[in-house]
Amino acid sequence: MATLSVPEVVPSPLEDAEQLRKAFEGWGTNESLIISILTHRNAHQRKLIRQAYADTYNEDLLKALDKELSSDFERAVLLWTLDPAERDALLAYDSTRRFTSNLWVLVEIATTRSTHDLFEVRKAYHARYKRSIEEDIAYHATGDYRKLLVPLVSSLRYGGDEVNNTLAKAEAKILRDKITNKAYNDDDFIRIISTRSKAQLNATLNHYNNSYGNAINKDLKADPNDEYLKLLRAVIKNLTVPEKYYEKVLRQAINKLGTDEWGLTRVITTRAEVDLKRIKEEYHRRNSVPLDRAIAKDVSGDYEKFLIELTGHGDA
Amino acid sequence: MATLSVPEVVPSPLEDAEQLRKAFEGWGTNESLIISILTHRNAHQRKLIRQAYADTYNEDLLKALDKELSSDFERAVLLWTLDPAERDALLAYDSTRRFTSNLWVLVEIATTRSTHDLFEVRKAYHARYKRSIEEDIAYHATGDYRKLLVPLVSSLRYGGDEVNNTLAKAEAKILRDKITNKAYNDDDFIRIISTRSKAQLNATLNHYNNSYGNAINKDLKADPNDEYLKLLRAVIKNLTVPEKYYEKVLRQAINKLGTDEWGLTRVITTRAEVDLKRIKEEYHRRNSVPLDRAIAKDVSGDYEKFLIELTGHGDA
Repeated sequence: MATLSVPEVVPSPLEDAEQLRKAFEGWGTNESLIISILTHRNAHQRKLIRQAYADTYNEDLLKALDKELSSDFERAVLLWTLDPAERDALLAYDSTRRFTSNLWVLVEIATTRSTHDLFEVRKAYHARYKRSIEEDIAYHATGDYRKLLVPLVSSLRYGGDEVNNTLAKAEAKILRDKITNKAYNDDDFIRIISTRSKAQLNATLNHYNNSYGNAINKDLKADPNDEYLKLLRAVIKNLTVPEKYYEKVLRQAINKLGTDEWGLTRVITTRAEVDLKRIKEEYHRRNSVPLDRAIAKDVSGDYEKFLIELTGHGDA
Repeated sequence: MATLSVPEVVPSPLEDAEQLRKAFEGWGTNESLIISILTHRNAHQRKLIRQAYADTYNEDLLKALDKELSSDFERAVLLWTLDPAERDALLAYDSTRRFTSNLWVLVEIATTRSTHDLFEVRKAYHARYKRSIEEDIAYHATGDYRKLLVPLVSSLRYGGDEVNNTLAKAEAKILRDKITNKAYNDDDFIRIISTRSKAQLNATLNHYNNSYGNAINKDLKADPNDEYLKLLRAVIKNLTVPEKYYEKVLRQAINKLGTDEWGLTRVITTRAEVDLKRIKEEYHRRNSVPLDRAIAKDVSGDYEKFLIELTGHGDA
């Protein structure tokens, strides 16, 4: 359900590297050429292009892009060009540094990446920052946030489809009891959310809904302004219906007075190769306008072109 | 610092499999032959033998050993023959099931395996039990034990040697403050112990010792019978001087009225290929008798022969 489109015949990494070099040379940068190449190569292909570029010109492609481009366009191109695990490591690192405002990014990384991909992010974090992601989160976060985020990012969730229904019912009851007592930071509450496989957790939440008449996130809205509860709802949404979570991030980014380019760029670059197609459908359904049109209305220039190339047109 | 010795010329996996098959056949089992082969093959070689055996005789070697052997000898041979990650997964699974008595095993696995090896254990646990190790620990453990063990097993500790001395001093002070207030289960206390790299933690504990005049484990002996404090001391010992931890497990297993075969087998089979040489030195130093002689005095028969072959003689 990616939106990324790759041509049937892809030039060799060296050819792409040479074209990019051409785009950087001479009078002014050829942004269109850069966009046309990079937005239509998958992660593996981009990696090979970076290698070929480094081998041929003895310079990191990211450094070259950094010199040639600027502003929102630059940030989008750099994030996209990075290897997904490196990109997430970088986003996570940024988040731990301006902590209060960006817990969302950590939640996204901890909950919407596959077990394998999250492990790759953690290894990339080691390599880049010489310490672990959970180490930094545990150090910078406090209280309930730490209690929730550290296990969330550390769990190696089982990825299989097996469901134990007896357990699901029992744990739905635990969740209900905790919510009734407003014990949202309870050890067992966090244990269930942070360690159970997505399939098992989904079964538990279905039992919750069937037995208690509300989706759990409705019951977690006791105090709509409580920041911890907001985060908890985001965790649950991401673990069960990530496209709805991302639709909302996009909606809020685009409809803001002054677009939230940071959020927009992040969602498009991290999901284009994963499930942006599903997110687009959700966006269209919820906003009665296709995502690409909403983006085009809101941003402009090379940044717009770049995002639209990654997003694709209409619902296709 | 392994004690495992592998001959210079190793038979092919198929030859070994054929010899093992011979040992099983006919009137009675040839235990000496089994011992002479298996105790002198490393993990990779044992894996190939298992494959060759399965390919040739259409039976799992472990099943065959299970049929032919019995009692402590059987358990030792089976544990040893298993792939290290599978073995740890099995030991961890057993521990979560008889929880109160075997937290030690979980601590050993969480703290003395390398970051990479612990990750392999977690994958093996997925494959074998269809859920995650932290999921089972979080489910079966409670209170302070859960609070300590879940992050301990979930952390992907950075493995590099870099040390930040400013941080080490600051965190030594945090540890000291918590201990002064008897806040042994404090969030920050557990965060430091469970997430910092071994090199960083070691620096922190050295600063602790230098600044406050005691090794931290001495200060954690406030109540010598407190089980949680015992476990905490074991964690710290394992992260810094694992050979001392293992020496003590062996000492207590051997000197018990009635040997603790479970502990003895576990330490020998899990460390023979890692650091049993270091542990043996420590044992000799602390007990004034070489480990192999202590084992020989305490157990007998094929079980004794098997352990001694893995342990080696004297301090060699």
